[in-house]
Amino acid sequence: MSEGERIRMRVDLAYDGTDFHGWARQPGQRTVQGELAAALERLLARRVVPVGAGRTDAGVHARGQVCSFDVRDDREAARVARGLPGLAPRDVQVLAVRRAEPGFSARFSAVARRYAYHLLWGRDVFRARYAVTVAGRLDREAMEAAAALVPGERDFTSLAKAGTVTAERGGRCAVDLCRFEWRPDSAILHVRADRFLHNMVRVLAGTLVETGLGRRRPEDLAAVLAARDRRLAGRTMPPRGLFLEEVSYPAAPSEREET
Amino acid sequence: MSEGERIRMRVDLAYDGTDFHGWARQPGQRTVQGELAAALERLLARRVVPVGAGRTDAGVHARGQVCSFDVRDDREAARVARGLPGLAPRDVQVLAVRRAEPGFSARFSAVARRYAYHLLWGRDVFRARYAVTVAGRLDREAMEAAAALVPGERDFTSLAKAGTVTAERGGRCAVDLCRFEWRPDSAILHVRADRFLHNMVRVLAGTLVETGLGRRRPEDLAAVLAARDRRLAGRTMPPRGLFLEEVSYPAAPSEREET
Repeated sequence: MSEGERIRMRVDLAYDGTDFHGWARQPGQRTVQGELAAALERLLARRVVPVGAGRTDAGVHARGQVCSFDVRDDREAARVARGLPGLAPRDVQVLAVRRAEPGFSARFSAVARRYAYHLLWGRDVFRARYAVTVAGRLDREAMEAAAALVPGERDFTSLAKAGTVTAERGGRCAVDLCRFEWRPDSAILHVRADRFLHNMVRVLAGTLVETGLGRRRPEDLAAVLAARDRRLAGRTMPPRGLFLEEVSYPAAPSEREET
Repeated sequence: MSEGERIRMRVDLAYDGTDFHGWARQPGQRTVQGELAAALERLLARRVVPVGAGRTDAGVHARGQVCSFDVRDDREAARVARGLPGLAPRDVQVLAVRRAEPGFSARFSAVARRYAYHLLWGRDVFRARYAVTVAGRLDREAMEAAAALVPGERDFTSLAKAGTVTAERGGRCAVDLCRFEWRPDSAILHVRADRFLHNMVRVLAGTLVETGLGRRRPEDLAAVLAARDRRLAGRTMPPRGLFLEEVSYPAAPSEREET
């Protein structure tokens, strides 16, 4: 069967990342990609490995991960649409199954990704899997002033895990949203960009929390970014506060829900 | 040392019941009472077993469990107040440590217990540990009409796990609250009584859901209760939707926070 006859599928997912070693398949580890590949193998009786929009790390959650893969024909497309939601493990939820345009790639077609980082004042045993408790008084104005320096197209190597920015792909990202949503008992940092470097949101959250605690001045963030040196930024916050919220693609009017 | 010199302590707790085999200590099982006893043993270098207000089952959560136990002197009381919050495991939260009146018993002094049962329409991977998804359209008016028949002092043997109502203690409970709180994506059943029989809230929730699905008529609940026969009531709902919310005691003005 030629490539041209295949049907490109798009699946939108939510998952609780607590009990996963991240998105990407690894031998001997429970991963989201691995669990999906196993479910697809049960449905289609062959190996199909979905491509994800964002390679979330161990413990990171998703409310709007997107993945894509090919099926051979209409029968297989229908089988995936009907069967995949019920075969997903308890901590993965299939939000939508669609046919996509032939050239669609969950990873390479994406034009923006939005993440949220959840901070909590005080302990809450029912939110401990999904937020990180920050002890101490935070200066909100300082945090907002620092966050306001982030948007723009620039090199974010200072916020990337050391040694992960390759010469080939570089450290440039275009951030168009970096804003706190304040709640009485918590806060959410929303960040959107065309792409993200490894650990970028978690390092940014750590740097902004240190600013809120008075350990950094808001205006210093500009120099931190300009230096392209991970050692100048703050600590990497734990993965459990991080959610991949949404992946955006160019509008494709011919996409339709598989029913 | 005589009994009279001991100090009675009260500790209020929240816990995520998912990874516990319930409140009550059992050999070889992880239980809340067992974890607390282990923490107290580390603090006081001897065996102290707290008495709980409600013996929550495996998987049942608590936002307001109360337990009591004795310490020998002011130094031990202060050590518990300072040390216990930090020694509790990750899924247990110590909300308050107080000295209680000498005769106080978390279990026998309680005059009311309030539980909440959480229902969810549709799946939500981030609430799957704390609510039960109900599929199908629910008739809210029917559920409210049936719930309105529950309050009063009567024998609730029909809602108790078969064989658990003893002649000694009987099946009488005085329920003074049984009401649904409706939300766009969910509902919470609130129930308060002086005491509860084993599985009572979970069987009540199952019976009311079956009423909402049209499998029972609301007015039939009166006959179900009058029969004192578990077989006439609905299914026992899963433990993960159930929270012990609050335990009430007679006002004791001389209680004070240990600081």
